[in-house]
Amino acid sequence: MRVLGMLLCIVALSMCLCLPLSYYYETNHLPDFFSSILLCFLGGGLLLFSARNKDLTVNKREGYLIVVLAWLTLWVSCALPYIITGEIDSITDVFFETMSGLTTTGATILNDIEILPHDILFWRSFTQWLGGMGIIVLTVALLPLLGIGGIELFVAEAPGPTSEKLHPRIKDTAKALWYIYLGLTLTLWLLLWMSGMNWFDGINHALTTMATGGFSTKNASLAYYSPQIQYIVAVFMFLAGVNYSLHYLALRGKFRSVFSSDELKAYTFIVVALILFIALSVFNITDITFEQAFRDSLFQVISIITTTGYVTADYTSWSASLTSIFFLLLFIGACAGSTAGGIKMIRHTVLFKNSILEFKRLLHPRAIIRLRLNEKIVPPRVLTHILVFFLLYVGTFIFGTIIVVMAGSDILTAAGAVATSISNVGPGIGDVGPVNNFANLNNFTKWFLSWIMLIGRLELFTVFIIFTPYFWRKN
Amino acid sequence: MRVLGMLLCIVALSMCLCLPLSYYYETNHLPDFFSSILLCFLGGGLLLFSARNKDLTVNKREGYLIVVLAWLTLWVSCALPYIITGEIDSITDVFFETMSGLTTTGATILNDIEILPHDILFWRSFTQWLGGMGIIVLTVALLPLLGIGGIELFVAEAPGPTSEKLHPRIKDTAKALWYIYLGLTLTLWLLLWMSGMNWFDGINHALTTMATGGFSTKNASLAYYSPQIQYIVAVFMFLAGVNYSLHYLALRGKFRSVFSSDELKAYTFIVVALILFIALSVFNITDITFEQAFRDSLFQVISIITTTGYVTADYTSWSASLTSIFFLLLFIGACAGSTAGGIKMIRHTVLFKNSILEFKRLLHPRAIIRLRLNEKIVPPRVLTHILVFFLLYVGTFIFGTIIVVMAGSDILTAAGAVATSISNVGPGIGDVGPVNNFANLNNFTKWFLSWIMLIGRLELFTVFIIFTPYFWRKN
Repeated sequence: MRVLGMLLCIVALSMCLCLPLSYYYETNHLPDFFSSILLCFLGGGLLLFSARNKDLTVNKREGYLIVVLAWLTLWVSCALPYIITGEIDSITDVFFETMSGLTTTGATILNDIEILPHDILFWRSFTQWLGGMGIIVLTVALLPLLGIGGIELFVAEAPGPTSEKLHPRIKDTAKALWYIYLGLTLTLWLLLWMSGMNWFDGINHALTTMATGGFSTKNASLAYYSPQIQYIVAVFMFLAGVNYSLHYLALRGKFRSVFSSDELKAYTFIVVALILFIALSVFNITDITFEQAFRDSLFQVISIITTTGYVTADYTSWSASLTSIFFLLLFIGACAGSTAGGIKMIRHTVLFKNSILEFKRLLHPRAIIRLRLNEKIVPPRVLTHILVFFLLYVGTFIFGTIIVVMAGSDILTAAGAVATSISNVGPGIGDVGPVNNFANLNNFTKWFLSWIMLIGRLELFTVFIIFTPYFWRKN
Repeated sequence: MRVLGMLLCIVALSMCLCLPLSYYYETNHLPDFFSSILLCFLGGGLLLFSARNKDLTVNKREGYLIVVLAWLTLWVSCALPYIITGEIDSITDVFFETMSGLTTTGATILNDIEILPHDILFWRSFTQWLGGMGIIVLTVALLPLLGIGGIELFVAEAPGPTSEKLHPRIKDTAKALWYIYLGLTLTLWLLLWMSGMNWFDGINHALTTMATGGFSTKNASLAYYSPQIQYIVAVFMFLAGVNYSLHYLALRGKFRSVFSSDELKAYTFIVVALILFIALSVFNITDITFEQAFRDSLFQVISIITTTGYVTADYTSWSASLTSIFFLLLFIGACAGSTAGGIKMIRHTVLFKNSILEFKRLLHPRAIIRLRLNEKIVPPRVLTHILVFFLLYVGTFIFGTIIVVMAGSDILTAAGAVATSISNVGPGIGDVGPVNNFANLNNFTKWFLSWIMLIGRLELFTVFIIFTPYFWRKN
C-alpha cells in the first residue's frame, strides 16, 4: 500500500505539469486536471495513511504482487485526465491508450491525433516517459534487490552494479539512472529545438523517444519532420535501447567495460547489418534516392528494433519479404535494462551462442561445454530460465493470435497486433500496420491487447506467476 | 559405402515389386523398371565391392554423415523410375515428389494423380512406406546405438529397450519393428478391402497410412471414399503415430508400461480434446450434420497431428480461427519413434511441464526442482537439448519462410509451405492448402522445400551438424 500510495502521489505531481499548458493554451481543462490531481492525492494519501507504522520487509511473493498492482494503479490513475476531460470518447479506448502509453508501446486508437488539445497531448507523451522511467528503475534497481524477475540481468550487468553491491546504495543508483534519463531527454529536446521543431513538439518527441514509446503529436508521425530531425531521433532511439547500466558506466568513464559488452556488440552489429541490407533492397525495389532509402531503413530498423514505433515510411508497402523481416523485428527488442520491450538482445545472444555450442556438445558428449558471455560463464540455471522465457513468449504470441483471430481479425492483422503488443512496439502489420491504427478493432480485442502489452512489459513471468497454484500455496 | 550399397540393393528389390503391376496393367514400363533396377544393383554392387574387407566400426561423425548420405542416395535412386518412364515432366518435380515420398511428407506437385499408371502410383506410395520404415529403424534402433540423434528417445523409451540393452540384439529389434510395421500395413489392407476399397487402392492407402505419408491414388484424397473407410483410416493413422517401442511392448503383453507412458497420455488427450472442440465449432459454423462435422474433424485432426496429410474436408474454409489452429497443428507431431514428423509430443510434454516448473523454481530459488517423465528424472542435459531443438525448429521455420517469401510467395503460403515441409505433413495453408498442391511454386522454392523436408525428417541436428566447423575440426 505504501508503494501504491507513493506512486499515486508521483502521478499527481506529474499531472501538475499539465496545468501550465492548460492555462497557456486556454483549453478549459484546468478544473478537470485539478480534480484528477485531487483524486490521486486523496487515494495516495489514504493508502499511505493506512500503511503507516507497518512492517517494511517484502518477500518474493509480495514483490511480484506489488509490481503488478503498481502497474494496475498507474493504469487507472493515468487514465483519469482522459476520462474527466472527455477528450477520448469510449472508456475502452481510454484504457487502451493509457496502457499503450504506460507500457511504452505507442499503439494508438486515435484517428486524428492533431485535434487533441496540447495539455492532453503532453499527458499522453508523459505517460510513456513515466512508464519508461518505471521500467528502468524496476529492472535495473528494484527487481534484482528482491532477487526476482530478470535474473538474466546478472549476465548483462557483469561489468556493472550487481544486486549485492547495489543494495546499500539503491537510492543512489536509482537517482543516477533518473539523471541519465532526464539528461538524455533534455539534450534531445535542445537538439530538436535547434533543428527547427517547435518547443512543444520537441518536448513531446523527446519524452516519447527516450521512453522508446512512439507516441507522436502528428498524424504522420516523424514523416512530418525534416531529414535532419529524423537522423537525430534515430540516434537517440538507438541510445535509448542501450542498457542503462552501460550508460551509467560510460558516465563514470569506464568505456572499456562498455565496449566489451557482448550485448552491445550484438545490438550494434544487427542494427548496422539490417540497415545496410534493407537500404540496398529498398533502393533496388523503389525509385527513391539512395539517401532516402538509407534514411528510411535506418530510421525504421532502429524504430522497430528499439520497440519505439515511430514511422517515417510505410515499410509494409516495400515488398512481402521486407514486411516479413519487419514482422520478425517485432520479436527482437534492444538491450535489457533499457526502456525497450521485446525478447531483448541479451537473450537472443545467449540463445544463439548456446545453440551453436549444442552441436559441439553433441560431438563431445562427455565434455562439459559452458556458455560464456562477457567472458563469464552463464550458469545453466540462467540458461534454462532464458529458454523457458523464449517458450512462454512464443506460446503467448501464438495463443494470443488465435484468440484475436477468434474475436474477428484476419490472421496477419492478429499476428501483427499481438506481436507489436507483447513487444511494446506500436505499429504491426496488416490492418494495424504503420499507416493505420488500432481504432477499428472491437472492444474485446482492445482490452485483450492492453493486457498483452502489460504481460510483455513485465516480462511474462511477473504476471503469469500470480496465476500459478505455487504462488498461493502456503509454504 | 557398405550402408549405401545395401540401401541401393534394397531399393532395387523394392522396384521389383512394380514389375508385376507393369505386366498386369500393360503400362509398357517393364524395360524402364528393369533399367532402374539394373542401375541400382550396379551402383549398390560397386559400392559393396569397393567396401569389402574394410573396417566396420563407425564413430559419431561418420554416423551423422552416413545418415545424411543414405537419404541422399535414396533420393537419387528412388527418383529413377519417374525419370526413366518420363511420367513426371520436370526434373525439379521428380525430385520434389521423391523427397516428399521418402520423408513421408505427402506434398505433391501433381495436378492430376489419377492419370498416372498403376505401377508408378504404387512406386510413389512405396517410397513413403520405405521412408517410414527407414525412419523407425533409424530412430528406434540405429541412432541410439551410435549415441547420436534423438537423445530425447531415452526419455521416451524408459519402459522399453534402451540403447545398452538394444546393442546385443539390434537385429532382433529391427526385425520386430519390421514385423509390426508390416503386420499393421497388411491388417489395414484387409480392412480396407473388406470395406469396399479395391485391392490396388487398398494397398496404396495401407502403405501411405502406416508411413504417415499421405500420398493418395485419388485427386480427392480420402474424401473419395465412404465414411466407414475414413473412420478405419483415422484409427490406423492414430496407431501409426504411436511410438513403436510401445507397439513392441504391447505385442509382448506389457500393457501396464504402455498405458503409463506420459507421451501416449498427452497424445491421446490432445487428440481427443481437439476433435471435440473442432467438431463442435464446425457444427456451429456450417450446416452439415453432426456426424459429418465429427468425422471431418476427427479425420483432419488425426491426419495433421500424425503428419499424414490426407484430406476429407477443406479445413481452411471453415473459419480463420480454425485455420490458425490447423496451422498450429503443423508443429505438433505425434509420438517420437513413430513415422510422424514435427516437433513431437514427447518434446512438447517436456517443454510444457518444465515451463510450469520454472514458476515454482522462481519462487523457491534454492530448491532443486527436477522435471520427471514416466516417473523418471529428465537429466538437465536432455532438457537443454530439447529446448535447443525447439529453438532451431522455430529458427528454421522463420528463416525458411523469409527465403520462400523472397522467392515470390505471399507470407501465408510461404509460412504454410515451410511448416508443412519441415514437419513432413503435406498440405499447408494459403496457395498450398488442402485442396491445392505444390505444382504452381517456382523451381527454386520446390528445391528449397525438398531440403527443408529432409532437414525436418532427420530432426535438424543431423543435417545442420555437418555444416558446423566442429564437425570438420580434427579432434
